[in-house]
Amino acid sequence: MLSVEQSISSLMQNSKRLADGETIDLIDACGRTLADSIIAPIDVPPADNSAMDGYALRHADGQNGRVAIPVSQRITAGSVPQGLQPGSAARIFTGAEIPPGADTVVMQEHCEEENNAVRILKLPAAGANIRRRGQDLATGQQVLQRGLRLRSQDLGLAASLGIARVPVYRRLRVAVMSTGDELRDPGDELQPGQIYNSNRFTMRSQLAEWGFDVLDMGVARDDPAAVREVLQESARQADVVITSGGVSVGEEDHVRDVVESLGAIDLWRIAIKPGKPFAFGHIMGKPFIGLPGNPVSVFVTLLVIARPYLFACQGIADPVLAPMRQTARFSHKVSQREDYLRVRASASGLELFPNQSSGVLYSTSWGDGLVRQKAGEEISDGSLVDYFPFALFN
Amino acid sequence: MLSVEQSISSLMQNSKRLADGETIDLIDACGRTLADSIIAPIDVPPADNSAMDGYALRHADGQNGRVAIPVSQRITAGSVPQGLQPGSAARIFTGAEIPPGADTVVMQEHCEEENNAVRILKLPAAGANIRRRGQDLATGQQVLQRGLRLRSQDLGLAASLGIARVPVYRRLRVAVMSTGDELRDPGDELQPGQIYNSNRFTMRSQLAEWGFDVLDMGVARDDPAAVREVLQESARQADVVITSGGVSVGEEDHVRDVVESLGAIDLWRIAIKPGKPFAFGHIMGKPFIGLPGNPVSVFVTLLVIARPYLFACQGIADPVLAPMRQTARFSHKVSQREDYLRVRASASGLELFPNQSSGVLYSTSWGDGLVRQKAGEEISDGSLVDYFPFALFN
Repeated sequence: MLSVEQSISSLMQNSKRLADGETIDLIDACGRTLADSIIAPIDVPPADNSAMDGYALRHADGQNGRVAIPVSQRITAGSVPQGLQPGSAARIFTGAEIPPGADTVVMQEHCEEENNAVRILKLPAAGANIRRRGQDLATGQQVLQRGLRLRSQDLGLAASLGIARVPVYRRLRVAVMSTGDELRDPGDELQPGQIYNSNRFTMRSQLAEWGFDVLDMGVARDDPAAVREVLQESARQADVVITSGGVSVGEEDHVRDVVESLGAIDLWRIAIKPGKPFAFGHIMGKPFIGLPGNPVSVFVTLLVIARPYLFACQGIADPVLAPMRQTARFSHKVSQREDYLRVRASASGLELFPNQSSGVLYSTSWGDGLVRQKAGEEISDGSLVDYFPFALFN
Repeated sequence: MLSVEQSISSLMQNSKRLADGETIDLIDACGRTLADSIIAPIDVPPADNSAMDGYALRHADGQNGRVAIPVSQRITAGSVPQGLQPGSAARIFTGAEIPPGADTVVMQEHCEEENNAVRILKLPAAGANIRRRGQDLATGQQVLQRGLRLRSQDLGLAASLGIARVPVYRRLRVAVMSTGDELRDPGDELQPGQIYNSNRFTMRSQLAEWGFDVLDMGVARDDPAAVREVLQESARQADVVITSGGVSVGEEDHVRDVVESLGAIDLWRIAIKPGKPFAFGHIMGKPFIGLPGNPVSVFVTLLVIARPYLFACQGIADPVLAPMRQTARFSHKVSQREDYLRVRASASGLELFPNQSSGVLYSTSWGDGLVRQKAGEEISDGSLVDYFPFALFN
C-alpha cells in the first residue's frame, strides 16, 4: 500500500503544467494563475507624498513656533505642487505630493492657521509624515510570482503598479464522468435499486470552485461501449479526465478495461480512509484519475489527492497544503490507514461527527474541515492534531 | 474609541437580511445562501443495499460452509432484485439492492463459485455488509440549515436526496465607489501628483469572491456634486453602498457631507490598526459603509468589519469567524489598538512581514493571513496567537 504522502508525491512527479498562457484584463483575473512573475514597473509611491492632512515646510523654518509662516500654496491629492519658497509653508492633504523644497509635514492638529499664515505649535522631527517615493515598492522588485493563484489583494497590488492586463494560464479543462446504472439525477423519480447521483454535483462544483473549465460528461451506462465513447470524447476535449466509480475489481466495473484499451491505468492501493480504490493513468495521452464511487471517498480523495495534481496541471506553484494544529475534543482509535475525519471547530476545539462511515456524505456537510489522523497515530481528548478547514482547499 | 468587537456587534445589531429569495437549479447553487432549511424527503440509502461485491443469502443457509448453495439470481447496482428463495444465494455487487429474504452479504473474497453454486469459506455475522435503508439520513431529518453558504459537499448532499432546485437568497447588490482626484486606473499614464487606484480592484474582486453582485461605480471626483450624483445612483441600484476614502475630517473629504445630506452618517473611531477612519450610515434608506482610503486599511476593514455585516445582509448565518491558534515566530510591541498583522505560515510557525505600515499593500500579498493582536496583548517568539488564514475569509 502507498501512503498518502507517497501517492501525492508520485502524482506530483508525473505532473506537468497542461494549460498555456493568455493575457487578460486585471479585473477578471481573480482566482486565475499567473503565467509570469510581475516586476514593479514603477516606484510606489511614485513620489514623496504626505501621510497626513497638515502643512509642508522646511524643517528649519518651523523651529520658532511663535512666528507665523505664510501659506503660499494649497496642495490636494492629485494636484501638482509648485516649488516651496524658503520661509513659506504649503497647506497639504493626505496623499498629496510634497512640494520640492519641503522636507517635513506638520499634522494639522499641531498647527494654527490665521490670515493665510500658519503657526507651528509642535514641530515633529525633520522628514516626519512623508511617505517616500519607492518606500513601499521599488522599480524592478519582483512582487507577484509565476504560479500564484491571484487573490483580491494581489489584484489591488498589481493595480497599484499600473498593471492593467496580466499573463495567466488559461483555465484547465477537466472532464468529469460518473458510472453506474443505479444513478439517477435529482428531480427524476427513483425506481427500485436506484440512488441519486451526488458525485456529479460534488465534483463538478468543487472543480468549478477551483477555477477549472468543467466538462460535465454525465453518467455512463455500465456498458463497455458506452463507457468507451464517453471517455474518448472526454480525452479529446479535456486536459484531464476524472471519473467516479467503476475502478474496483468487481465484474461490473468497466472503466478499468476501457481506460487500459485506450491508454494505461494503474490501480493504486492508497492507505487512506475513506478513499480507496484510486486509479491513475492516461487516455489517448491525457491524464486519467479514477476516484472511488463512494460519495465521502470521492470528496476526500478529490481534496487530498487529486487537488495538488490538478493544481500542478493548472500551473499553480506549491499546491500541497500545510495543516493547522488544533486541539481534538474527541478520541479516535488508531488506524493502519491515514484517516480523514470529518470534524467541526468550536471554541474549545474540534468535535468529531459521530458516524465516520464513508457512506455518510452528511458528515462532510455537518463538518467544517478534516482532521488528518496519520497511520498509527493515537488521538485522545486534548491531543494536538492536523486540521484542514474546508476553506483552505478552495 | 470602539473596540473591534463592539464595532462588529453594533453593525450586526443594525443588520438585517436585504436579499429576497429565489429558487434555482442545484448545480448553480455553489456559493449561494440557503433561504430555507432542507429536510430529507427520502431515506438514504432508499433501501437496504450491499456494501460489498459478494453473495447475499439467509445467514442460516451459510452455516455449513461445505455445502454449495445454488446462485439463483445476479443483482447489479440499479437492477431490481427478486425475492430470495430459502437455500439459495444471490450474486450481488456494491450498491445493489438486497433481495427480500436475504439478511447477510458475504464478501466475494470469502466465497468460491463453481457451476452456479457458491461455497461460503468464511461466514460473517448475520446482517454483515448491508447498508440499511435510512442509515445515513432518515426522511424528515433537517440536513442543511437556512443561512448556509452552500459548498460543493452540500450540493452533493442535496443531490443525494433527489433535490434538483433549491431556495436561495438572490445575490446581495453592493455598489463600490472610490474617491480622489489623484486616482488613475491602471493602464493610464500617471501625471505628477497621481497614483493608481488599487482599492477599486481589491474591493470589487473581494466582493465578487463573496458572491455579491458588484456595481462598480468607479471613481468620483473630489467635488460634492460629483460625489452626490454617484452616491444617489448607487443607493438607487444597490442594497448596500461602500466607498473607500473621503470620510476623514480633512477639508477635501466630501463624502461625509454628501452622505449626511442624503441620509445620515456616523464616523466611528475604531481601535483597529490598520483601519481608521470608518463610517457607517445610510443613503436614501440604503446602508452606507465608508472604508478608509489607505489600501491596507481598506483590505483589513473589508475582511474584518464589513464582511460580517455584508454576510448578514445577504442572509448568511453566523458570519463572524473564529480564529485559529498558531505559534508566532516573531515578537511585536504592545499596541493600544487591535492590530491586524500580515503574516505568512511556515512549518515552524507564523512569520511577520517586516514592514507593517498601512501603506504597504505588498504585505497583504506577501502574506497568507492575519494575526489579530488584541489591544494590550504582548506577542513574543513562541506565543500562541489568533490567526486568520486569508482563505477563511472567502
